[in-house]
Amino acid sequence: MTDLRRLIRDVPDFPKPGIVFKDITPLLRDPGGLSTAVEGLGEPVRGRKIDAVVAVESRGFIFGAALASRLGVGFVPVRKPRKLPWKTRSTSYELEYGSDAIEIHEDALRTGESVLLVDDLLATGGTMEACVRLVRGLGAKVEACSFVVELGFLKGRERLKGTPVHSLIRY
Amino acid sequence: MTDLRRLIRDVPDFPKPGIVFKDITPLLRDPGGLSTAVEGLGEPVRGRKIDAVVAVESRGFIFGAALASRLGVGFVPVRKPRKLPWKTRSTSYELEYGSDAIEIHEDALRTGESVLLVDDLLATGGTMEACVRLVRGLGAKVEACSFVVELGFLKGRERLKGTPVHSLIRY
Repeated sequence: MTDLRRLIRDVPDFPKPGIVFKDITPLLRDPGGLSTAVEGLGEPVRGRKIDAVVAVESRGFIFGAALASRLGVGFVPVRKPRKLPWKTRSTSYELEYGSDAIEIHEDALRTGESVLLVDDLLATGGTMEACVRLVRGLGAKVEACSFVVELGFLKGRERLKGTPVHSLIRY
Repeated sequence: MTDLRRLIRDVPDFPKPGIVFKDITPLLRDPGGLSTAVEGLGEPVRGRKIDAVVAVESRGFIFGAALASRLGVGFVPVRKPRKLPWKTRSTSYELEYGSDAIEIHEDALRTGESVLLVDDLLATGGTMEACVRLVRGLGAKVEACSFVVELGFLKGRERLKGTPVHSLIRY
């Protein structure tokens, strides 16, 4: 088991002054780090059958697709508006200033299917809460939400209450 | 072996009138499709040791990270400007109208390391040509470029001459 925490790099003042960004690229670059993270993200559904892994662009794609491939299940991308080419369902969520939206293909999941949601970072939980809404809107069941890094002081876990939340590194 | 071609959906007039978009989401959603694609993308380096898989956001991340995880090597993301938090090298490339740029972390690869480049689509080859330039600029060696879909009529392969090109589905 690789120590994941030592593979996270603090970058001060990114993307703006006062923010300390948790850079996951050293973890991705490390073969043991990548495999330990991908394996750890699958922990909430170990020994259970799920139908797909769902993740939001762009960093979520990295971990979500690697985990889907490892579990031998399908992968469903959730994207920013106008990126998915087929018929979509959309939902919006609040940002610090204004709002944003994410979309899922309406044929991506069927009623009763069970999925694991994956992202690199749990901050305020706004994006993942919107993602849960999209998945449930298609009639699928969210088994859990898995994150590489959780910023506990932002209380994203409270926003996702009712859904099991799993994270590999907590600050 | 899953027939990948039947898992690609043609979407007319996306992202603009006259373009027939090759939608890979049905392939991603199919467990056999995803694993067949990921395995096939690794074909150019089968039996050889490489150091990392490199891919460009966002769809490239899906296949690139899944392949890196499968091969047990590191993953290096190449991104649009101002997305990577650490020190970067940048290169620009021509688009139909204007130009765009992509970046790589300057500590992502070391001199002499060997990598496989992965993307979902080979169209004109401009993005991948820029990606090859970034990787070589760090002193690393490009073993091959692997794509899920190749639009042969756009002659991207010619633009990448000097680099082995592998694709799983050719139109």
